[in-house]
Amino acid sequence: MAKGKVCLAYSGGLDTSCILQYLLDEGYEVIAFMADVGQEEDFQAAKEKALKIGASQCYIEDLRREFIEELCYPAIACNAIYESVYLLGTSLARPVIARAQIAVAQKEGCFAVSHGCTGKGNDQVRFELAFYALQPSIKVIAPWRDPVFYNRFKGRNDLLDYAASKHIPVTSTKSKPWSMDENLAHCSYEAGILEDPNTSAPEDMWKLTADPTKAPNEPEDFTLHFEKGLPVKLESKQEGTKTDPVDLFLTANTIARRHGVGRIDIVENRFIGLKSRGCYETPGLTMLRSAHIDLEGLTMDREIRALRDQFVTFAYAKILYNGLYFSPEREFLETSITASQKSVNGAVRCRAYKGMFSVVGRWSDTEKLYDESESSMDEIGDFQPQDTTGFISVNAIRLKKYGKAKEEKGESLVKH
Amino acid sequence: MAKGKVCLAYSGGLDTSCILQYLLDEGYEVIAFMADVGQEEDFQAAKEKALKIGASQCYIEDLRREFIEELCYPAIACNAIYESVYLLGTSLARPVIARAQIAVAQKEGCFAVSHGCTGKGNDQVRFELAFYALQPSIKVIAPWRDPVFYNRFKGRNDLLDYAASKHIPVTSTKSKPWSMDENLAHCSYEAGILEDPNTSAPEDMWKLTADPTKAPNEPEDFTLHFEKGLPVKLESKQEGTKTDPVDLFLTANTIARRHGVGRIDIVENRFIGLKSRGCYETPGLTMLRSAHIDLEGLTMDREIRALRDQFVTFAYAKILYNGLYFSPEREFLETSITASQKSVNGAVRCRAYKGMFSVVGRWSDTEKLYDESESSMDEIGDFQPQDTTGFISVNAIRLKKYGKAKEEKGESLVKH
Amino acid sequence: MAKGKVCLAYSGGLDTSCILQYLLDEGYEVIAFMADVGQEEDFQAAKEKALKIGASQCYIEDLRREFIEELCYPAIACNAIYESVYLLGTSLARPVIARAQIAVAQKEGCFAVSHGCTGKGNDQVRFELAFYALQPSIKVIAPWRDPVFYNRFKGRNDLLDYAASKHIPVTSTKSKPWSMDENLAHCSYEAGILEDPNTSAPEDMWKLTADPTKAPNEPEDFTLHFEKGLPVKLESKQEGTKTDPVDLFLTANTIARRHGVGRIDIVENRFIGLKSRGCYETPGLTMLRSAHIDLEGLTMDREIRALRDQFVTFAYAKILYNGLYFSPEREFLETSITASQKSVNGAVRCRAYKGMFSVVGRWSDTEKLYDESESSMDEIGDFQPQDTTGFISVNAIRLKKYGKAKEEKGESLVKH
Amino acid sequence: MAKGKVCLAYSGGLDTSCILQYLLDEGYEVIAFMADVGQEEDFQAAKEKALKIGASQCYIEDLRREFIEELCYPAIACNAIYESVYLLGTSLARPVIARAQIAVAQKEGCFAVSHGCTGKGNDQVRFELAFYALQPSIKVIAPWRDPVFYNRFKGRNDLLDYAASKHIPVTSTKSKPWSMDENLAHCSYEAGILEDPNTSAPEDMWKLTADPTKAPNEPEDFTLHFEKGLPVKLESKQEGTKTDPVDLFLTANTIARRHGVGRIDIVENRFIGLKSRGCYETPGLTMLRSAHIDLEGLTMDREIRALRDQFVTFAYAKILYNGLYFSPEREFLETSITASQKSVNGAVRCRAYKGMFSVVGRWSDTEKLYDESESSMDEIGDFQPQDTTGFISVNAIRLKKYGKAKEEKGESLVKH
Repeated sequence: MAKGKVCLAYSGGLDTSCILQYLLDEGYEVIAFMADVGQEEDFQAAKEKALKIGASQCYIEDLRREFIEELCYPAIACNAIYESVYLLGTSLARPVIARAQIAVAQKEGCFAVSHGCTGKGNDQVRFELAFYALQPSIKVIAPWRDPVFYNRFKGRNDLLDYAASKHIPVTSTKSKPWSMDENLAHCSYEAGILEDPNTSAPEDMWKLTADPTKAPNEPEDFTLHFEKGLPVKLESKQEGTKTDPVDLFLTANTIARRHGVGRIDIVENRFIGLKSRGCYETPGLTMLRSAHIDLEGLTMDREIRALRDQFVTFAYAKILYNGLYFSPEREFLETSITASQKSVNGAVRCRAYKGMFSVVGRWSDTEKLYDESESSMDEIGDFQPQDTTGFISVNAIRLKKYGKAKEEKGESLVKH
Repeated sequence: MAKGKVCLAYSGGLDTSCILQYLLDEGYEVIAFMADVGQEEDFQAAKEKALKIGASQCYIEDLRREFIEELCYPAIACNAIYESVYLLGTSLARPVIARAQIAVAQKEGCFAVSHGCTGKGNDQVRFELAFYALQPSIKVIAPWRDPVFYNRFKGRNDLLDYAASKHIPVTSTKSKPWSMDENLAHCSYEAGILEDPNTSAPEDMWKLTADPTKAPNEPEDFTLHFEKGLPVKLESKQEGTKTDPVDLFLTANTIARRHGVGRIDIVENRFIGLKSRGCYETPGLTMLRSAHIDLEGLTMDREIRALRDQFVTFAYAKILYNGLYFSPEREFLETSITASQKSVNGAVRCRAYKGMFSVVGRWSDTEKLYDESESSMDEIGDFQPQDTTGFISVNAIRLKKYGKAKEEKGESLVKH
Repeated sequence: MAKGKVCLAYSGGLDTSCILQYLLDEGYEVIAFMADVGQEEDFQAAKEKALKIGASQCYIEDLRREFIEELCYPAIACNAIYESVYLLGTSLARPVIARAQIAVAQKEGCFAVSHGCTGKGNDQVRFELAFYALQPSIKVIAPWRDPVFYNRFKGRNDLLDYAASKHIPVTSTKSKPWSMDENLAHCSYEAGILEDPNTSAPEDMWKLTADPTKAPNEPEDFTLHFEKGLPVKLESKQEGTKTDPVDLFLTANTIARRHGVGRIDIVENRFIGLKSRGCYETPGLTMLRSAHIDLEGLTMDREIRALRDQFVTFAYAKILYNGLYFSPEREFLETSITASQKSVNGAVRCRAYKGMFSVVGRWSDTEKLYDESESSMDEIGDFQPQDTTGFISVNAIRLKKYGKAKEEKGESLVKH
Repeated sequence: MAKGKVCLAYSGGLDTSCILQYLLDEGYEVIAFMADVGQEEDFQAAKEKALKIGASQCYIEDLRREFIEELCYPAIACNAIYESVYLLGTSLARPVIARAQIAVAQKEGCFAVSHGCTGKGNDQVRFELAFYALQPSIKVIAPWRDPVFYNRFKGRNDLLDYAASKHIPVTSTKSKPWSMDENLAHCSYEAGILEDPNTSAPEDMWKLTADPTKAPNEPEDFTLHFEKGLPVKLESKQEGTKTDPVDLFLTANTIARRHGVGRIDIVENRFIGLKSRGCYETPGLTMLRSAHIDLEGLTMDREIRALRDQFVTFAYAKILYNGLYFSPEREFLETSITASQKSVNGAVRCRAYKGMFSVVGRWSDTEKLYDESESSMDEIGDFQPQDTTGFISVNAIRLKKYGKAKEEKGESLVKH
């Protein structure tokens, strides 16, 4: 091939099928790449389609385990959350996909990688920053940022016409009035009718979770065990006991989905400075993260927790959201996450019901930071209550000065 | 009176009745002080009891409005939360109570204030740090930290005996196996059987909120309007429209209580370094805070939000939790809260159902940071998609160096 | 003019003279703009040159006062510093220059502004982000990022040839082997021979400050007074008393320059992700900032200071460095700076000597946070030393648990 | 002995000699403990005196190496500084002293440790928090916080009388009008005449460093090499090449002392909430820390540095200052320090002159984050200048909205 090989992230849908054809038209040899991160997809049909359109090869890479173990688990361990609400479900999958795509590109000797991300979103940034860190010399072909391409294909109809002219089969299913991105942890919905932030998500949009109003009328209880901050066992009457990370995660999903846990609807700030409205469902991860937070209450030192909350959790979420997983700072922060989780060992008794997750108890066999008798209001124990007098007095030294200064300035703190 | 006047925070219960008597025995004149922060209480009966025991006066101060306007509203405006879970319901009431108690003490010429807080908790610290800032010269009498007192009254029975011997009437109601603290925003449950962190809260414990499993089967929708980050209007089919802060807050409570919203169960880190288990219900505040967070997504600049989240919210919660409301740093932070909220104007459409609060839409008539057509994936608009190429390239400069350094050290980021 | 008016930031040097000519060649009408921020420059000669080349107008705007009052003073008030070393001398001047240039552009009806910044530096980013905030509709012409321009003018010789062909007079002075940027606060040196980070700055490079080894052999003392964190009076035997901000700042410069104070040599991280080596001299600002820090020790509450140091100072410096002065976050932070400085009232006795600035004493007539007798180790005063026992005991609760956990795990903290 | 053994931190001075006698009077057996952290002291004479007074044993522990390697070196690696000025010289020595004292106490079977710290300072807190973490069951006897003791010994004369009555020899040297604390890294001066923050430090007070005005007239150059952020080699014409940590540190001291580098004079905020004035000299550490900061500019990733500066450096300094070295949070932070320093490999060319330390060049043989040709303003290299246009445009999206909102509200950012 005159112009060399390109590894294209392919989904089987209209956009990437047209891009595949377009790259062939432009004289590239195309290697199609599909990442299995747990989304519902007919991978074989898509592969056949890619080959039929003209891809030289089509790789389907099963990344589910590494997605859970390398991305979702650290996110649980640091309680990652973006802008107080979003659990980063889409962002978490991008690093494993980009890494596998570069691996295929390297194996196949591709000089470039390509993708079908739009020019205003976060995903283009996440994929490409990962590509450049993973292989600094790689070239990226992003058709939706190429004026030649986007001026030619101004809407879905232009793509449909092009597909027809090129004999690319198009699934007859009517396109949904929003776009979706799914993986094992999460499904996102945005664009289309959701662009009006005051249009409520239609009930039939949600795919992964039961409608809470139709969820079982009985709460369902289960127990989650953690070691060094990572989930190691899920015990459920209905689902049995799971210890393998993938099994455990999928079972958490099963329970959360059944009870409609994990739906959110937000307006968030994209890396490129635009605001965007998204509806997300993140069933199992929502429960695992909340249970983890609970266990930290029992087993983690207050000051480590405060430092971790304010710096590590905040920075980790921002870094992941912005697509900076393969970066010096993520590597740096992950050391801190690990160091913070040494004592997060124990179990949390959990409940799912009608969209709500709650904790109903927790214990640790190994960590002793919580001491019933010591905390007890009814026992004196080893503790001298009068010590607190000194503690208060010393803490009051600075405040008394504040009060006196206020008095002198005639700005009484007391209301009369 | 030989030993001077003491202003005692009085509740009408066994502890503070015995303390009142004890202070009289010790030769003090006692001014009883009761704060109405919205707790369920027979204030008149308590007042009569205080006077009957021997208090010279009994003040009942209605602090509900200032509690909501001066404490709960700023907490909403900065999304205050302690250790990811606790909305500070108890902590928020302490400053207004301490301030009113000092005002009474000053009016009555008391040289000291007294309270019935235990020696291991946060509340003694919160009250006393406030007292010392409000009136640096005040003396504090804390019987539960006085060995003479606590060695004499080692348990409830000692108090009952003492009450009997002093003809102090004791309510016959059997004491509950936990202790409670209630105000307009919140009710807390701790100690007693709850000290085992793995003992689930009994269903009949919760006082303010319906059991979610018995809550209505139909979701209830309502709309919250905010100006400069503060709630200014609640619109509800069932409850009507409320604009007065107290009305609005109480109506939010009514809706949340009906649907069982706002229960949590945690192990938290007290200021004095002990861990403690608490069950809290915070109905209306939970919803108001969540709606406020949602509106910030639509109306607040990304970078102000990030600075506010990481520094102001974090520090404000810690300061309130630790009882440092009357402090230079709280004053300083409140300036930042106000500055951050200028653009938080708009409305949020909300839903309560079976313990869960969710947002189903939001809009702003005045703030234009969100722009549908600009954010739209389907429109090019004013935006040049190719600009993002440069944005990514420049952000990748540092990452390519990282990737190259990894390659040179033989630590490939790619998995093969 | 067919292609409209452009307002060009003009310096009179070779680069911007060629750009002026180039813009005329391209068919634009050019309004030349020169900002006087205190740099040594023959503004009249430059103006004549601009008009001779063909500018329709040449504005010379005196921005010295606003530069000091609006930029340098807030920087002093928050102790702004980038990467522990750099006082932001260049960054601080950019906002006033950009603002004045946009004002001229608006007055003259220009559709675009232009500048001669290179394509790898921070200044292009700082100017243009300011332009876009100040007038979102403005167009920017940046020749050094235009391939047509930079491929045509690959080096100084190409510019010299072009200038000769266009009869643009070129100053005969041999170009220095580095580039400089000067203003009232600072002079920077970078590029050229300085690009090797191990090449020491030549002694004859430094322009604003005396060589410390040749500075006076006697230290020089002076006193700086601050109100609300801003310098309000400088008292010097040699220089007299100054209260006007510009006079005061210039006098601080005079003293610092005489004694060689304020030189640094660093490798810093640019916004665009490259590292760059710079030598900077910032005479007066170095002393004013250090004196301000000292006074905060005496007059500022510990916790406000800690919050300000960690968040406000850090963020303000980053924002200024990256060119985000005209931004929501800078406005937000400036509210915090003001709030933090209420008590920073007093005076600092200072000394300059052979490159070193030091503080030899300080006092405040109004702030009473420091109390000699209270701090005195020799007096008991109002303070109960035994209170500290309780303070230590309570702080030790958490640490004893840490020690016990270590013991139980056999990881003794003690070395034997 | 009826009342058991106490291990007393002994200095040979008047205070601790009287305390030793007092403890004996009280019926304790006393083990004297002296820590050699590099202070100038006649340890043998002090030991003889302790034994003569009645100590059963006197231990002299040489802690110089562990002080440098375990405390000073991590402090350099994270650029530790308290309140922008203080290098923590005293705080850094406390952990090794407390640890060695507990080791002696354990070896000797002491039930308690004792010290002569005053009741208002930081050192009592630092020692005791360390004691409690190191051995949670230890008792602490702090005579200066015991009313019986401090009411009996109200001033120096009471101690002198007591010493005379007990035949304790007192050095005839007249007491200095300030108190000092010295170690290998630092000497502090406070109290006495220094309590007036406007009294300048007398020139004859400074002990460790030459008066800058009397320091050599020629600058002295030397080179410091670092590996993973730690000093590994000092090369000096005058002093030779040093690689052993103690030799290297002492040589840095020698050079800095000769040139009067490292004096400061500040008012700082103590842990207990009082302000206090201190004069400190920290010769070698000042230079080692500054050189380390410089090398980070060349070799450390920007984002790791920003995270480290804002969180790790800030928290580490506060923790050390407050005496929380033996704590979960310090252990946690030290992991982050190590992780941040992987790339801090290279050398810094340094200069000392008349109180001033400066950097005159730096290089790294292994780290390639700085790239001369890439950073060069004169070369295009691998970089596309037009990429910056996109970078600026995307960063401007948010700022244009800000500008538009300002315009709409009639709050123009432009001055006319």
